Amino acid sequence: MITSADNDKLKTVRKLHDRRWRDKLDLFVAEGEDLVETGWKPEFVLVAGEDVEPALLDEVSALGSGTRVIGVYRRRWSEPGGDLSVYLHGVGDPGNVGTIIRSAGALCDGPVILGPGCADPFSPKAVRASMGSLFARPPARGAPGGRLVGLDAHAEATLAEIEPTPPLVLCLGAEREGLPEELAAERVRIPLREGGPDSLNVAMAATVALYDVAHRMAAHA
Amino acid sequence: MITSADNDKLKTVRKLHDRRWRDKLDLFVAEGEDLVETGWKPEFVLVAGEDVEPALLDEVSALGSGTRVIGVYRRRWSEPGGDLSVYLHGVGDPGNVGTIIRSAGALCDGPVILGPGCADPFSPKAVRASMGSLFARPPARGAPGGRLVGLDAHAEATLAEIEPTPPLVLCLGAEREGLPEELAAERVRIPLREGGPDSLNVAMAATVALYDVAHRMAAHA
Repeated sequence: MITSADNDKLKTVRKLHDRRWRDKLDLFVAEGEDLVETGWKPEFVLVAGEDVEPALLDEVSALGSGTRVIGVYRRRWSEPGGDLSVYLHGVGDPGNVGTIIRSAGALCDGPVILGPGCADPFSPKAVRASMGSLFARPPARGAPGGRLVGLDAHAEATLAEIEPTPPLVLCLGAEREGLPEELAAERVRIPLREGGPDSLNVAMAATVALYDVAHRMAAHA
Repeated sequence: MITSADNDKLKTVRKLHDRRWRDKLDLFVAEGEDLVETGWKPEFVLVAGEDVEPALLDEVSALGSGTRVIGVYRRRWSEPGGDLSVYLHGVGDPGNVGTIIRSAGALCDGPVILGPGCADPFSPKAVRASMGSLFARPPARGAPGGRLVGLDAHAEATLAEIEPTPPLVLCLGAEREGLPEELAAERVRIPLREGGPDSLNVAMAATVALYDVAHRMAAHA
């Protein structure tokens, strides 16, 4: 039983709050029993009251008090691919990145591909928002290939006009900046009410597009 | 120019972090220029460097440093209604409540109706997540009426089978507990991949359902 904050495992967990340490050690943390249960083989697990004093585990939690289990894992990445996948460019909010990983796990067969300027999918908030999907299908890195369709509030064509033929990569940019011009010549918008907000939250837009295309792809298969 | 933390307006902003004070004073706070610009007539506005020393405004911000403008507003509520609206039951995360208010503003003509156990839509996180939509169409309270369709992972029927005839209220419960049995006899599920996660985040589910039904309702009109 760990009874001192000066323990090496606790120090590692604390370091892993920081993206530079995650990159350096190639490790990340998952908090909570539900997540740790779904995870792959951990480097180590700390259970409050069994391996470590509960107050000491709370101190190294990134998500607030009451954490009963923390697992430390080596990072894994997928290769881009699948009939339907998602590419994100400049999506800086870790909650959004994690939520999109969860939605992709539920709705398509390919990974979430992370381009420049995206939040770290292995940050505590992203891991939490992804639920088990980060483990079931880790994200990919780099540039997407094949047929790219960009979500773009200014596009003329609408989501329902996408020809649902695989393979297809749905591309989304940051909420304000959108996608770089040179990426994804084919663009569609999600039709929104006049006089309402200009846009949906990026995780909402990704999930609506995944649902719509996946649903029609399955019907055409 | 306010130069002391002991100022009444700053004290009010600080109190309004707390739900009990929001209920008591019937006021709430919106932070950030983009939000305050979209808001209705404020009780008062504090601009960093004009009305108040920037460091003092930062101190009363609920959303972190760098806030340039804070507005204080009287709460308003909508009445339930519209061709398409959303009812939430036990949705406790303020980010999800705010995001659903934003999605409803973009996709349907009715308000978000908040049942028991929901996060306060006037909390700082919910206001931020709602973007301008909280002002454009405030949430409603109480029980929904008319034709209720519940989102339910265990339903046999799927979302695409909902007959898109207005008026219709989409009902969503907490992610684990779901909806109370007595609510919404008509239930549908969003089809998800086998072996993937059991469910979408509640804000994702609400937005996908709003998109699907609104789109088909418009096509039938």
